[in-house]
Amino acid sequence: MHKLSNAPDRRTTLKLMLATTAVGLSGVAAHGQADPLPSWNEGVTKQAITAFVARVTALDGPGFVPVDQRVATFDNDGTLWIEQPMYVQMAFILDRVRALAPQNSDWKGKQPFQAVLDGDMEALAASGEKGLVELMAVTHAGMTPEEFHEIVSDWLATARHPRFKRPYIELVYQPMLELLAYLRANGFKTFIASGGGIEFMRPWAERVYGIPPEQVVGSSIKTRFEMRDGRPTLFRLPEINFIDDKAGKPVGINQHIGRRPIAAFGNSDGDLEMLQWTTMSGGVRFGLIVHHTDPEREYAYDRQSHVGQLDKALDAAALNKWTVVDIKDDWKRVFAFQ
Amino acid sequence: MHKLSNAPDRRTTLKLMLATTAVGLSGVAAHGQADPLPSWNEGVTKQAITAFVARVTALDGPGFVPVDQRVATFDNDGTLWIEQPMYVQMAFILDRVRALAPQNSDWKGKQPFQAVLDGDMEALAASGEKGLVELMAVTHAGMTPEEFHEIVSDWLATARHPRFKRPYIELVYQPMLELLAYLRANGFKTFIASGGGIEFMRPWAERVYGIPPEQVVGSSIKTRFEMRDGRPTLFRLPEINFIDDKAGKPVGINQHIGRRPIAAFGNSDGDLEMLQWTTMSGGVRFGLIVHHTDPEREYAYDRQSHVGQLDKALDAAALNKWTVVDIKDDWKRVFAFQ
Repeated sequence: MHKLSNAPDRRTTLKLMLATTAVGLSGVAAHGQADPLPSWNEGVTKQAITAFVARVTALDGPGFVPVDQRVATFDNDGTLWIEQPMYVQMAFILDRVRALAPQNSDWKGKQPFQAVLDGDMEALAASGEKGLVELMAVTHAGMTPEEFHEIVSDWLATARHPRFKRPYIELVYQPMLELLAYLRANGFKTFIASGGGIEFMRPWAERVYGIPPEQVVGSSIKTRFEMRDGRPTLFRLPEINFIDDKAGKPVGINQHIGRRPIAAFGNSDGDLEMLQWTTMSGGVRFGLIVHHTDPEREYAYDRQSHVGQLDKALDAAALNKWTVVDIKDDWKRVFAFQ
Repeated sequence: MHKLSNAPDRRTTLKLMLATTAVGLSGVAAHGQADPLPSWNEGVTKQAITAFVARVTALDGPGFVPVDQRVATFDNDGTLWIEQPMYVQMAFILDRVRALAPQNSDWKGKQPFQAVLDGDMEALAASGEKGLVELMAVTHAGMTPEEFHEIVSDWLATARHPRFKRPYIELVYQPMLELLAYLRANGFKTFIASGGGIEFMRPWAERVYGIPPEQVVGSSIKTRFEMRDGRPTLFRLPEINFIDDKAGKPVGINQHIGRRPIAAFGNSDGDLEMLQWTTMSGGVRFGLIVHHTDPEREYAYDRQSHVGQLDKALDAAALNKWTVVDIKDDWKRVFAFQ
């Protein structure tokens, strides 16, 4: 079988070629001819990142990892973009409920809807997970994925962050954009692995992060295939399919990617298991936690926060020698506009 | 936001460059300087394939599709490799049950296990879906994904097809390997979308088809994350997670890829909905069905077959102008060794 027996050789050659290119690129960076991470201050954090990349791309080194195994997974909320004062997807849900209320007069006086319409966050919190699932159902289900993408895109075009008064897609962390590009330039395939909705991220992740839809892993609701007026259609159902958070992250990553990442990036306890599964597997591995320490330029929160709580994972970081980004010290700027 | 506002322009340029390269490549093929599909006989089938590729890659043509949207999905059993006299994964299950029987003395006299040990396919069939799920549980669950990959790889290295007496990975269709490579050379991203087990295909799909694990969509059982002796581990559970067949194929493709394919390739009624969803969506689209018509070199089966039944999808092919491969007429050779 000519084709088959030759294939591994050809692929090995290609891998070596790609690896050489990658080493070349990181070599340029290491020699300071061009800094691939200009928004990162010099220091141990930046060094830890570049040292890891240098090790896995050094063709004759003991830590070399072939290009096809250079998988890196990134949490989204609080790791790639802002998550305070509430998850962006929650802001979307609240806005959608308000927009849909005129056509749903039965929501009046009914929780959790009335709480949203009153802006009564306490009553909303009291409606618990059951309330949240009801809000998800009316805002995320009952349409095709294409229609949902359009709703999300339209909302993102007009919604503004309450403090920064800017579109949410401008509130992505510039140092992390540089990190994504740096890893890709070194042969990494970059994936999102988020507790957020997979179809909430797909409409803009490629444009904003350079991550295509097929490299987005996230939580999902079920969809059903059906013929509608003779047209084959997917329809989004008000039923949870998968929660890609905490112990679900390794499960979602394995289901979607089928390889264990060699680098993982997160910022909260929701990322703990992904970081453990990625780094505690032998070989040269990299775990990083973004610690929000800068109330001036962004926010400061960790162990006591309701959104993006970072408690167990911060302890685990010390134990497992994960790199912890101190935003205040490590980032020259947080957002591109700063 | 310098980085963001520049990104689309850079990407557009890159797309145009890639598209130009792709046109260049297909141009070479069209002018006969090198035939990318040497195992395909000249005729309407081959012409339909090359005409479609020419249309979607023609930069200034009305059918042009940007590279990032050139997604093609392939069924596996009966489309990329052999599925007669039984699905390869079924042969694996039967062999595994026989191999595990000595350590499971309680299987004696108990169905569906005794049927497997007796080679009594009638009794096995009588155990129905419930029996199959029991066999799946003991052969596919109870280990990590890595352990399962090793079991599959070991089995593929020794198992032989009953008629051809060759390893199953040699019983892949040479014309389809060429088609995969041809599409990739023209900027397509090729995915498997199979009713078979996702983790049954991942260990060898990259080596045999050039399709990496993250581009394999298939049926799956659930996995659970747990710490075992202080090591983070995924564990395969005896519980169905998702069946990627029939109306499940568009669902699985959307979940995994997040884009609607522009070309889909199948061979049975299990591929009907994938083909409908792909082709009945406006724009230049391509659907292809492999019709097994060659009992000499492979097998001949369609409307009445228990494995890979092709009935409704054959009617739909005529209705929707899908290309139907007549293996006997259209393929110069079926397997590379022929």
